Amino acid sequence: MAKRIFNFNAGPAALPLSVLEEIQAEFLDYKGCGMSITEVSHRSSWFDEVINDAVLRVKRLLNLGENYKVLFLHGGASLQFTMVPLNLIADDQVADYVNTGSWSVKAIKEAEIIGKKVRVVASSEDRDFNYIPKDIAFDADAAYVHITSNNTIRGTQWRSFPDTGGVPLVSDMSSDIMGRTFDVAPFGLIYAGAQKNLGPSGVTVAIIRQDMLERVPDNLPTMLKYTTYAAKNSMFNTPPCFAIYVLQLVMKWLEETIGGIANMEEINRKKAELLYNYLDESDFYRGTAEKEDRSIMNITFRLADESLEETFIAEALANGLGGLKGHRSVGGCRASIYNASSLEAVQALVSFMAEFERKHG
Amino acid sequence: MAKRIFNFNAGPAALPLSVLEEIQAEFLDYKGCGMSITEVSHRSSWFDEVINDAVLRVKRLLNLGENYKVLFLHGGASLQFTMVPLNLIADDQVADYVNTGSWSVKAIKEAEIIGKKVRVVASSEDRDFNYIPKDIAFDADAAYVHITSNNTIRGTQWRSFPDTGGVPLVSDMSSDIMGRTFDVAPFGLIYAGAQKNLGPSGVTVAIIRQDMLERVPDNLPTMLKYTTYAAKNSMFNTPPCFAIYVLQLVMKWLEETIGGIANMEEINRKKAELLYNYLDESDFYRGTAEKEDRSIMNITFRLADESLEETFIAEALANGLGGLKGHRSVGGCRASIYNASSLEAVQALVSFMAEFERKHG
Repeated sequence: MAKRIFNFNAGPAALPLSVLEEIQAEFLDYKGCGMSITEVSHRSSWFDEVINDAVLRVKRLLNLGENYKVLFLHGGASLQFTMVPLNLIADDQVADYVNTGSWSVKAIKEAEIIGKKVRVVASSEDRDFNYIPKDIAFDADAAYVHITSNNTIRGTQWRSFPDTGGVPLVSDMSSDIMGRTFDVAPFGLIYAGAQKNLGPSGVTVAIIRQDMLERVPDNLPTMLKYTTYAAKNSMFNTPPCFAIYVLQLVMKWLEETIGGIANMEEINRKKAELLYNYLDESDFYRGTAEKEDRSIMNITFRLADESLEETFIAEALANGLGGLKGHRSVGGCRASIYNASSLEAVQALVSFMAEFERKHG
Repeated sequence: MAKRIFNFNAGPAALPLSVLEEIQAEFLDYKGCGMSITEVSHRSSWFDEVINDAVLRVKRLLNLGENYKVLFLHGGASLQFTMVPLNLIADDQVADYVNTGSWSVKAIKEAEIIGKKVRVVASSEDRDFNYIPKDIAFDADAAYVHITSNNTIRGTQWRSFPDTGGVPLVSDMSSDIMGRTFDVAPFGLIYAGAQKNLGPSGVTVAIIRQDMLERVPDNLPTMLKYTTYAAKNSMFNTPPCFAIYVLQLVMKWLEETIGGIANMEEINRKKAELLYNYLDESDFYRGTAEKEDRSIMNITFRLADESLEETFIAEALANGLGGLKGHRSVGGCRASIYNASSLEAVQALVSFMAEFERKHG
């Protein structure tokens, strides 16, 4: 038996054990083809089945209509910070951005680097990004409204999406895609690095609406145009095959083992509630995000005595609970409890936290 | 025992079986950390060791001096077609490109899309790209000279690199890096998609000289600047961790099992010679590239009776020899015999070809 810890990493993050076991079992001989999935041509029927099934499952899970395309891109969400404005803001247009933390800041910065006009319509920087701005006035002529649906570093999440009056929403959903149900209709584009809720690092998913594809100018670099990927089923060049294969298996697990996103959300809410309830009842720990905007994916907290945090993280690891260190830019503690983190993992964490409090409180 | 075929895919391609077995064995619990390598944080000591060892091995294998950096990039060689001119051609400069086939054509096209000035100084298009141009006159003021060291589709390879009179060479080495020894000193930049000689698809290696890094303008998109990767050990954002990990193991195999690139080259020459000798002696098959410019990595050939090619490829697969179909843009047959293809694999191919000739000749 392999030794396994409870993994609370923010990304790359835990994957379902059954998926890892399936990969391991067929790693030298993929479906009897005599090659590893890492050795199979992306132009083969074996890989075609992988990528087509991955697309289909994403569409089914998110209940996407025919007017949406699912793309597999390179470069992480960070390259999307450039591709989004490059593809979707016309020269005479301005895009509205909501600033809810580091990832929004980077998205805004990259749009400006390529000379696009950006308007920051709201920001939670005034209170260390510990909340989500409300009642925002958007420009009806904006090219799009860009939000970060879940803020991995600060532990906040848009509980409901803002009414933009018809302006297309564009969201970085890297850290909460597939974690809860939502209506995709207002979204022109959703993008997500895979390494949190979808699979391993190395592939980025984009869900793009037809009218957004129609905006893409002809004269962009081929690899930076959404239309390139849409026209070639994400295989204009060699895609990151292994990452797409793992993503396909994670989507299969989400559909067939969990039973879809509604079921997943119920589990996720239970996990988050268990941990937040514990934090709220304790004087030893405290959550850092405003209650009404708390993320169900990344639970950020501090110890009342911050000097104990290093010991807390080290003892947790010694007890088989890994990845609890907060992002290096903010410090503190963080439990990322993405889809593949089980209720059992959160129960183990809460037990450990209680035990640690008894010892050090 | 897993069933394994002899894999002649052009990329993604064969990987050393011992490497695949190592990955499989530690897939659920990487070095006792209780997580899969796909679940480990890129900010952890476990992954630091992987990426640092990968860099070190690439440096050692290619005998790189302190003035070269090894970077792991996203987007395949295709994104390099944009990044190279974007980073390395100043506004008042022109770059020289040699056109030896589809990949050179794409590199030239992408430079032009972003408005950079490019001079095609030589081309082998007049004879279906079946040779490498000689005695080329380069511009002494060129920003760089761009070549494709090995032409995967046409089966040609630069046997020796052109004397550019001090102008930095830039090469797409996707399909022959680490396949033979060469002097790196004239090269300002070498880039390679991993999925042929280095590892699986999903990561691109760049080897860049200090004076090239100094050319990079400040105002480029962060993810499209070589300096971003050089400053952050290729981890400004989440890298494609699994692909880098496999690459590290392939480099370890090349150093410790094969004994370095000189040994690898000897094996590669033996493999290519065996196959070319057979082609040259046969009237049933014929090589398509000029003898003096033949690739030792991709052996392209036709059957005298081209109508038999489909049967040839299908029967080969039935006999455990996969991936022999030529690129869809040129047709015919191709055996890609990269580093991880064994002499045994080529011997099996030649035996099959002889048998097929007896049956159909």
